[in-house]
Amino acid sequence: MIEYRNVRVALLGAGSVGSQVARLLLEHGDELASRAGAGLELVGIAVRDTDAPRDVDLPKELFTTDAASLILGADIVVELIGGIEPARTLVLQALQSGADVVTGNKALLATHGPELFAAAEQVGAQLYYEAAVAGAIPIIRPLHDSLAGDRIERIMGIVNGTTNFILDLMDREGATFEDALATATELGYAEADPTADVEGYDAAQKAAILASLAFHTSVPLAAVHREGITSVTIEQVRAARKAGYVVKILATAERLTDAQGVEGVSARVYPALVPESHPLASVHGAKNAVFVEAEAAGDLMFYGAGAGGVETASAVLGDLVSAARRHVIGGPGIAESTQSALPVFPIGSVSTRYQITLHVADAPGVLSTVAGVLADHGVSVETVEQTAATDPGDGTAGTANLVIGTHLARESALADTVRALRDEDVVVEVTSVLRVVGA
Amino acid sequence: MIEYRNVRVALLGAGSVGSQVARLLLEHGDELASRAGAGLELVGIAVRDTDAPRDVDLPKELFTTDAASLILGADIVVELIGGIEPARTLVLQALQSGADVVTGNKALLATHGPELFAAAEQVGAQLYYEAAVAGAIPIIRPLHDSLAGDRIERIMGIVNGTTNFILDLMDREGATFEDALATATELGYAEADPTADVEGYDAAQKAAILASLAFHTSVPLAAVHREGITSVTIEQVRAARKAGYVVKILATAERLTDAQGVEGVSARVYPALVPESHPLASVHGAKNAVFVEAEAAGDLMFYGAGAGGVETASAVLGDLVSAARRHVIGGPGIAESTQSALPVFPIGSVSTRYQITLHVADAPGVLSTVAGVLADHGVSVETVEQTAATDPGDGTAGTANLVIGTHLARESALADTVRALRDEDVVVEVTSVLRVVGA
Repeated sequence: MIEYRNVRVALLGAGSVGSQVARLLLEHGDELASRAGAGLELVGIAVRDTDAPRDVDLPKELFTTDAASLILGADIVVELIGGIEPARTLVLQALQSGADVVTGNKALLATHGPELFAAAEQVGAQLYYEAAVAGAIPIIRPLHDSLAGDRIERIMGIVNGTTNFILDLMDREGATFEDALATATELGYAEADPTADVEGYDAAQKAAILASLAFHTSVPLAAVHREGITSVTIEQVRAARKAGYVVKILATAERLTDAQGVEGVSARVYPALVPESHPLASVHGAKNAVFVEAEAAGDLMFYGAGAGGVETASAVLGDLVSAARRHVIGGPGIAESTQSALPVFPIGSVSTRYQITLHVADAPGVLSTVAGVLADHGVSVETVEQTAATDPGDGTAGTANLVIGTHLARESALADTVRALRDEDVVVEVTSVLRVVGA
Repeated sequence: MIEYRNVRVALLGAGSVGSQVARLLLEHGDELASRAGAGLELVGIAVRDTDAPRDVDLPKELFTTDAASLILGADIVVELIGGIEPARTLVLQALQSGADVVTGNKALLATHGPELFAAAEQVGAQLYYEAAVAGAIPIIRPLHDSLAGDRIERIMGIVNGTTNFILDLMDREGATFEDALATATELGYAEADPTADVEGYDAAQKAAILASLAFHTSVPLAAVHREGITSVTIEQVRAARKAGYVVKILATAERLTDAQGVEGVSARVYPALVPESHPLASVHGAKNAVFVEAEAAGDLMFYGAGAGGVETASAVLGDLVSAARRHVIGGPGIAESTQSALPVFPIGSVSTRYQITLHVADAPGVLSTVAGVLADHGVSVETVEQTAATDPGDGTAGTANLVIGTHLARESALADTVRALRDEDVVVEVTSVLRVVGA
């Protein structure tokens, strides 16, 4: 039996992830020690209410409500409280005291990342955050270390399990958005207030974190363009499948050059059409996946559980072992790298492809009118499909559906095009506008 | 412009990967320096013949035939020669001189891994080998670092692009093995002598490396059970697809308990039936993917290019940046971790499911005879499907096909069962025996 020196670990928060981290630390102590080269001693768990019910049965004497004192006696602080305060203050205190911090707090990183990384750098402490994006899936470390010698061009992530579950149910069982959301809530995949998920706020936080890391540039949450899935209709999902696509909500981080030739980055979240043959299309249920396009490596995908207490605890423990190794041997951890400091572009600068579905009058010259609007805005048409919609049966002209697939064009030009189409008399309604990616 | 101290990099080998590593080092020097915190100075490239034609145009003055001298002047040695000698001697020299080594040499690691890791440990040098398994896909570091706090139960990898390309072509275009191999050779996916790929030798080396890393146990290449794909028929692939499966050749590393209750590990390579809904089933063409089942994290998959010069160079450069960071700051690298030292079991100890296809006499009592043979060996039947095969039309009894799916049973019992079935008079032929995984 090898004897190890102990590294003192303070845990803040004992929710679904925190309680699993505590359980695994206590149950797998010897195995973790052999990996880390140091014993991981759980010195205490700070919670708001020591008597609250927990998912896991943990020794009573570990609990305290005095987080600040707990931090002062720790080498490594694991923050799993979530939200901004008191998490921010406690993480800053921990870093300033020289402790390394492991966190799964995406909201905190997306809004106060630069402040936290600066505090860490000042004292040579480290901030680890594998659990903040895509739960159990190793993605932070591969981006930071494995791809450190490559140049990442684009990341497209299914990083929110709730919305992937909903869209997958709509696609595979023909459920409406409302029914799918109800099922997700019933099965515990969606919270009572699903806004953060279905409106894309959660995915936007992850997009900011991924973009900052991948492009070595601080990408603020406010710069992430965000569209949720509440307006995705079952008709859109059906039409997409018929055309060989699946609707997925993607967090995208991309290196691009704007119209003025300036190199920069974009981070955005929106539902988009993904070709059925694309690896992201076969990510079902509440699973997550992050698709990475790198200059040398080509296409990579990282797939797994994006949430869940014990699954996310795996990512936290991985960071904890790394932090403990570093504590014993010294050396580099996961530092922020913002050396590139590229400009962050608004959504208008992004080039994308649109699929526009129009409900139009079925009269001579309609196609020419529509095509003229696109041409006026410099948007080039790749495909057009016209199908008769309804015959009013009263002798007046019927209507038709027009599905237009565009070539790559700037978002700004595409948005202007859609606006102009809405103003045309021959256009009864713009039924659907969806971006097409990965084709 | 920040000035960095330089880390001296010696490159051994300038083949398809080596020449791309050299090119990227020279072209992306500033960017790599900012990631590493040190300049990566390519001090020389050792090759057998300085005048041989290269994939990439590189400065003539970098080339030398004197590898041993080059090593002595280097902080980090990148070995991309391949094969055992002179790679082994040069890597040992480099490590003994205190240089960190980055290698993509799977054959060397699978056969001499323990010797190399021991040499590294003796002087505190590091051996990095992300490029040795699954090309560009980050898998070594995620297993070593990200999952360090978890317990890996099983790894199933599509780690050989050539054989996945061949099986995929058989599945998707109905090609025979011979035709698919010919196409693979024509397109450059298979070498002139395809033995290492189609007989599973290449995959077996990777299985040994993955098993050693995942289970913290030295798994020698000789302990890897190996079956190739040369006997996979188009009939098997078609029948598999009809039953909802895809045939994939998998490198499997598994933690298991043998019949005596002893905990150990198994490493093996064979073609197996994978359910169509499994993430591995949608890995097409020459792509690779590594599916990992961990106790806490659940199912993970890492997908991407498993070969290719520039793709694999991405993995080499990632290691190189890590090695340079460590050179500047100090700290842990990718050390071997063999603390668990579990026993490595032969294939007979593994539990699996078989799909057995029999060509039998269509006579009363046949099913009962066959079922009796399975029961005698303690093998439990999950599904049976009987279809009429041929009617000889001469008044004698015809024959039938019997497809039997078994429950989990030990390989040894299953092998004995198949042998006993072959000996039964009513069994005309054992047409196909395939393992079923992931269901």
